Amino acid sequence: MNNHRILLTERPTGIPGPEHFQADVEPVRPPGSGEIVVATRYISIDPAMRSWIGVGPSYVRQVEIGQPMRAGGIGQVVESRAAGFAVGDWVQGRTGWQSHPTLRGDQTQNLDLSVGTIEDWAGPLGTSALTAYFGLRDVGALRPGETVLVSGAAGGVGQIACQIALIEACRVIGIAGGADKCAYLRDRLKLDAVIDYKAEPDIAAAMRRACPEGVDVYFDNVGGEILDAALTALRMGARVVSCGRISQAGATEQYGVKNLGALGGKRVRMQGFLVFDYHDRYAEARAWLTHHLRAGRLRQKLHVVEGLDRAPEALAMLFSGGNTGKLVVGVG
Amino acid sequence: MNNHRILLTERPTGIPGPEHFQADVEPVRPPGSGEIVVATRYISIDPAMRSWIGVGPSYVRQVEIGQPMRAGGIGQVVESRAAGFAVGDWVQGRTGWQSHPTLRGDQTQNLDLSVGTIEDWAGPLGTSALTAYFGLRDVGALRPGETVLVSGAAGGVGQIACQIALIEACRVIGIAGGADKCAYLRDRLKLDAVIDYKAEPDIAAAMRRACPEGVDVYFDNVGGEILDAALTALRMGARVVSCGRISQAGATEQYGVKNLGALGGKRVRMQGFLVFDYHDRYAEARAWLTHHLRAGRLRQKLHVVEGLDRAPEALAMLFSGGNTGKLVVGVG
Repeated sequence: MNNHRILLTERPTGIPGPEHFQADVEPVRPPGSGEIVVATRYISIDPAMRSWIGVGPSYVRQVEIGQPMRAGGIGQVVESRAAGFAVGDWVQGRTGWQSHPTLRGDQTQNLDLSVGTIEDWAGPLGTSALTAYFGLRDVGALRPGETVLVSGAAGGVGQIACQIALIEACRVIGIAGGADKCAYLRDRLKLDAVIDYKAEPDIAAAMRRACPEGVDVYFDNVGGEILDAALTALRMGARVVSCGRISQAGATEQYGVKNLGALGGKRVRMQGFLVFDYHDRYAEARAWLTHHLRAGRLRQKLHVVEGLDRAPEALAMLFSGGNTGKLVVGVG
Repeated sequence: MNNHRILLTERPTGIPGPEHFQADVEPVRPPGSGEIVVATRYISIDPAMRSWIGVGPSYVRQVEIGQPMRAGGIGQVVESRAAGFAVGDWVQGRTGWQSHPTLRGDQTQNLDLSVGTIEDWAGPLGTSALTAYFGLRDVGALRPGETVLVSGAAGGVGQIACQIALIEACRVIGIAGGADKCAYLRDRLKLDAVIDYKAEPDIAAAMRRACPEGVDVYFDNVGGEILDAALTALRMGARVVSCGRISQAGATEQYGVKNLGALGGKRVRMQGFLVFDYHDRYAEARAWLTHHLRAGRLRQKLHVVEGLDRAPEALAMLFSGGNTGKLVVGVG
């Protein structure tokens, strides 16, 4: 049995794409004691990947040149020498961009399929959903009735953030690029208002029109110019959840944010976080997400790019805003 | 008896100064029921004043053209028709830039001179000190042993912030402009390190040298370029207290802050506040400040500009960084 892999061959200075990776094949490494071999089904494609492979400073260990790209994924156990894992079990773990990785059992989790499907575990029960949950509820300190503005609203984290806010009885305004994404947010997710930033000549004015009494929580997935505009639309005591800055990924010069004066004048709290800090509370989040998933109040569009070899292309698509919903690569 | 006043005659677009004000004299307005007449002794000169008189949006009511400049001050009661105030009492209240204002008793507080001198009430027990106290302890969530970086460290709020952090067993690094201010901070306030931003070619590198393990709390009085540099020197879990942005006051174009990526990568919280939000806890803060003042652990250099007519000049000095310590105008 062979393990197909996609290796990092060059560090991108701008947007990552096919030119920075190379396909490779090797025999599957036989599992040692405590290890399992997994047949990968879905690989998560996330904005944070840019920081794992770039030339700049990174707050996590960087992927080394010549190594398979790091990624979280879902797959089925095909060989096991680890207690608690049987052949046929569905698991999630650090598959990387590999078709048949050999993984440590203690770094891999069994998936409970009575709770959700494989696709649910890749979407509304996955890490992007946990990110939205802790970002909005803990960092954003969301309260019912508040006005919530979400950028990157059609993306993996953004869609869930919008729906959590709707479930919590908030008024929700989504920002996305393009008519299709905006129609999806308005018609399928039933947001209260949608702003198409590609069609709006003055994004700050559009925000103020959509949120005439001001924004209580701005959930920021993009940074840059949209963040700067959102700072002008905040209400007294607002919270800005710094979840992502995808507009700045690979930018040769970072956008300079001018409107930070809002922090003092309006007692604003702006806070970054990493979902892994909330590891001890994943069960809580999944209980909440599962409850609302079963009740039909939570949906997650998976954007599947089929074929391991297309993973670099999928990553490039993420940064060009080509995906609607949680982006994954389908394998096998 | 006459009331000398300084009236706002023109809204500054840049730094405010003598050209925006005009001296005036009128007979003292006799106090109505519940009012007192005060002979002003000290008037506080604060960065926030810029936002009360500018053309831009302000989060507090603006001073009207032709009216006396708004200000907090300390003085002695010379006539009273308000219960609880006797002639000769020392009080603090909204004197504005006036020598003998007529004030409402319910907006004026008696000063307890057993707690501190008039100068103490203008300095280490005044509003600037309360700002430092709540900013550092509540917003900054200061913990003993942490590394604290303070900009505008020689200013009214900055000096107290530095000393509160020293009292709380923190390592304290002050940023100020010029050798005299830096010598004062190092030799008199005994800070652990001092950065003269006017003498440093690379302020971010200087911060990293002074804080090799990173900054836990950055108390920001200045905004702009120094804030941007400080964002590169933060430690995991750091807090940025957005207290002031004096470097941006009256700037024709606001500086664009590029390094907000630190928020996500290092789980940073950046928060603005207004001291008035903590009004219910002023007694707590004054108990703490008084305790350490009496023990000799807290000092506040008052920078006194004598003469009501020089108030506009004092305000301009504040924005050029001419003061060391809490800036007040001395009257009478």
